[in-house]
Amino acid sequence: MKKILVIGAGRSAIVLIDYLLDHAAAENWHITVADADVAHAKKMIGSTNAASAVELDATIDAQRAALIEKHDLVISMLPAFLHTLVAKDCLALKKNLVTPSYISDDMRKMDQKVKDAGLIFLNELGVDPGIDHMSAMRLLDDMRSKGKEITCFESFTGGLVAPESDNNPWNYKFTWNPRNVVLAGQGGAVKFKHNGKFKYIPYQKVFRRTEVIEIPGYGLFEGYANRDSLSYRDLYNLEGVPTIFRGTLRRKGFCRSWDIFVQIGMTDDSYIMEDSMNMTHRDFTNSFLKYNEHDSVELKLQYYMKLDQDGDVFDKLQWIGIFDDEPIGLKKPGTPAQILQKILEKKWSLKPGDKDMIVMWHKIRTRDNGDAAEKEIHSSMVVIGDDEPRTAMAKTVGLPMAIAAKLVLNGTITAPGVHAPVTKDIYEPILNELESFGIRFEERDMPVSSND
Amino acid sequence: MKKILVIGAGRSAIVLIDYLLDHAAAENWHITVADADVAHAKKMIGSTNAASAVELDATIDAQRAALIEKHDLVISMLPAFLHTLVAKDCLALKKNLVTPSYISDDMRKMDQKVKDAGLIFLNELGVDPGIDHMSAMRLLDDMRSKGKEITCFESFTGGLVAPESDNNPWNYKFTWNPRNVVLAGQGGAVKFKHNGKFKYIPYQKVFRRTEVIEIPGYGLFEGYANRDSLSYRDLYNLEGVPTIFRGTLRRKGFCRSWDIFVQIGMTDDSYIMEDSMNMTHRDFTNSFLKYNEHDSVELKLQYYMKLDQDGDVFDKLQWIGIFDDEPIGLKKPGTPAQILQKILEKKWSLKPGDKDMIVMWHKIRTRDNGDAAEKEIHSSMVVIGDDEPRTAMAKTVGLPMAIAAKLVLNGTITAPGVHAPVTKDIYEPILNELESFGIRFEERDMPVSSND
Repeated sequence: MKKILVIGAGRSAIVLIDYLLDHAAAENWHITVADADVAHAKKMIGSTNAASAVELDATIDAQRAALIEKHDLVISMLPAFLHTLVAKDCLALKKNLVTPSYISDDMRKMDQKVKDAGLIFLNELGVDPGIDHMSAMRLLDDMRSKGKEITCFESFTGGLVAPESDNNPWNYKFTWNPRNVVLAGQGGAVKFKHNGKFKYIPYQKVFRRTEVIEIPGYGLFEGYANRDSLSYRDLYNLEGVPTIFRGTLRRKGFCRSWDIFVQIGMTDDSYIMEDSMNMTHRDFTNSFLKYNEHDSVELKLQYYMKLDQDGDVFDKLQWIGIFDDEPIGLKKPGTPAQILQKILEKKWSLKPGDKDMIVMWHKIRTRDNGDAAEKEIHSSMVVIGDDEPRTAMAKTVGLPMAIAAKLVLNGTITAPGVHAPVTKDIYEPILNELESFGIRFEERDMPVSSND
Repeated sequence: MKKILVIGAGRSAIVLIDYLLDHAAAENWHITVADADVAHAKKMIGSTNAASAVELDATIDAQRAALIEKHDLVISMLPAFLHTLVAKDCLALKKNLVTPSYISDDMRKMDQKVKDAGLIFLNELGVDPGIDHMSAMRLLDDMRSKGKEITCFESFTGGLVAPESDNNPWNYKFTWNPRNVVLAGQGGAVKFKHNGKFKYIPYQKVFRRTEVIEIPGYGLFEGYANRDSLSYRDLYNLEGVPTIFRGTLRRKGFCRSWDIFVQIGMTDDSYIMEDSMNMTHRDFTNSFLKYNEHDSVELKLQYYMKLDQDGDVFDKLQWIGIFDDEPIGLKKPGTPAQILQKILEKKWSLKPGDKDMIVMWHKIRTRDNGDAAEKEIHSSMVVIGDDEPRTAMAKTVGLPMAIAAKLVLNGTITAPGVHAPVTKDIYEPILNELESFGIRFEERDMPVSSND
């Protein structure tokens, strides 16, 4: 019998745990779900002999190591900064490890030791990072194996609301960590390559430099640039490829309105606003506008941002409630970003029955050896959530990790070391099995789009 | 005989040293000028028996302390972060201290010990901070002593080029640290109060929320907001004053054009640009613009920033050279801000014979006790440089420090402790003597300006 330890059983772990329980009998597994909240962990596993729930404070070294020691493979769903602790234990105790997070520098430094110990530490195994890597590398490897030269690689992912639950003017609801949405684009300029030129976009222009994308059957989206597309040159072996661009998807029209929050300063997380516990939504908005004793907050914003009073952007701002005379309801003074999040959550939270949607889209342009003409393909994936805990996000994060754990335990994935799923031995079996869960890509040959 | 030690003799120390030498005989002083570059220190003092030059690496504790021990008063012209080292020595060795820099937290913590030792550590004694504090507090104290209630305090300072040397379309040249000019407005949102409301401006709007100011005889200026005006509430005793605003002056029209650099990302100092050693000015500009194989860099920028091809803003951008096919000439790869600085320095450096100008302007509105109507006064100072080393900046930074040193040594300033010059016993004798050097303020009663 193989013993699997899942550390950290947040709401998004449900699909992961479902999969492990479903396969426990056939694979001869026992699963332990460890969480600070043991009642929650118990609820996640339900009544089964295949699994047990234990209480764990993952920051206590002895407790954590003692638990890891009793297992064969660890799946860490902890906050990313805690993976290193788990990884050190796994190395010392010779256990395999699966995480959904970006490989940290500390994790990367363990690579040789992990190899020497014959262990496998698989990371970046959620949706983004995760399915994005696997699906992109399958396409790129396939083309390169046919002798094609890659001339353009673009890739976009978005966590959105499903069409059947899309009932507000922003065509958006929070389906994942709202704080990350509010802070999106901050913390460093956007860097990418376009037709051989390095290009940079500062935060204040990120939401105005979008690309419109159509996905058949799902309509129009727009993508804004992710921070550092250039870091994918090495990971995807794209050195010398003239265009490399990664971005995040929203429904068309979102970014132009979001940009108003950016421009007036509502997404700033660097300072605490004075007296913010006593503010209304309207006071908050007014804090960013020039004083004028005659004009309303609405008029001042329209004038400042050159907005039409009867335009789409202003409609969205009004709908979201930034002009409302309603208390924000903070328990302690907050930053603009924290306050904006609080206001947005009142309107953008998923309601019971609401479904989320994960959309991923790749565009790759290639040239046959010696040929001047280019060819273009688009590859897209749309996943819609089943119900509230079994969201599209929980499926696309949980299933790749669960499948990867199985493939390590059953000896399909064998290469020791610290890995992201960018090699065929890892991505191919995972992508193949994901298809049986409806997580699949559709490829289309397209006319070559304008090079601009 | 009193012994004065000047540590750090950068070019801007010349007026300070001139003053000390001029007063050495009458005051019975000996002056030591200590610098890492002893040849430069020797040049600064010329041939005089009243002063000597010594070599000093101010970061070597024993060397620094040994030198300080031989003197009665230390004037530290070192980079701000080194003042703390000097201050600790001064405390241990019981010497008085004068610096031009903001009181750091470390410096502030020494206050009680400085008091207990009966010492005087005077800081913030240049122009900004320095003359701004002194002139503002003289006005505010005067009004408060007459029972007036302060309802509005605004204060602007600018380091500019003198009218007789103002011969470019930006009406600007670098007269002080160019790096500070390029990074102006970054590092935290602007915070101020307007008519009782807290107001905030993010970096991306700082150069579009300017105030136009006229100074009789000198024409129009515009002021952009400094970062934290609210920190002056305590320092100037402005708690409860409805409007508190501090800013920086440029010639009218500057900020709108500067804002283009901000908007497209040229002032970003957070990342190194790829291949920037091989870039031309034009390549640099193109890095921030969307790829388009048909349009020129000029056209792309005009379209992106909605600039008229025959407008003032575009004229300024063209004049400054950002479209030039000229190598930038970096010795190592740089950040956008470093590269922009390099480009600007080619056009904005002072030429031989060019004079600089320091402009300061305060606006104060008051209400007599029980009176509804407000009164407004403006107070302004304009100082023009004599010649290249004896610039307006060197005068307005050096003279207040030199005078303060004299007033401490001759027993006019007596209150022990760590101080900024915000109390009458300090600011009054300094401002009075500054007038004999042509550094004086003109006050005008004004019609009350719009409250907007």
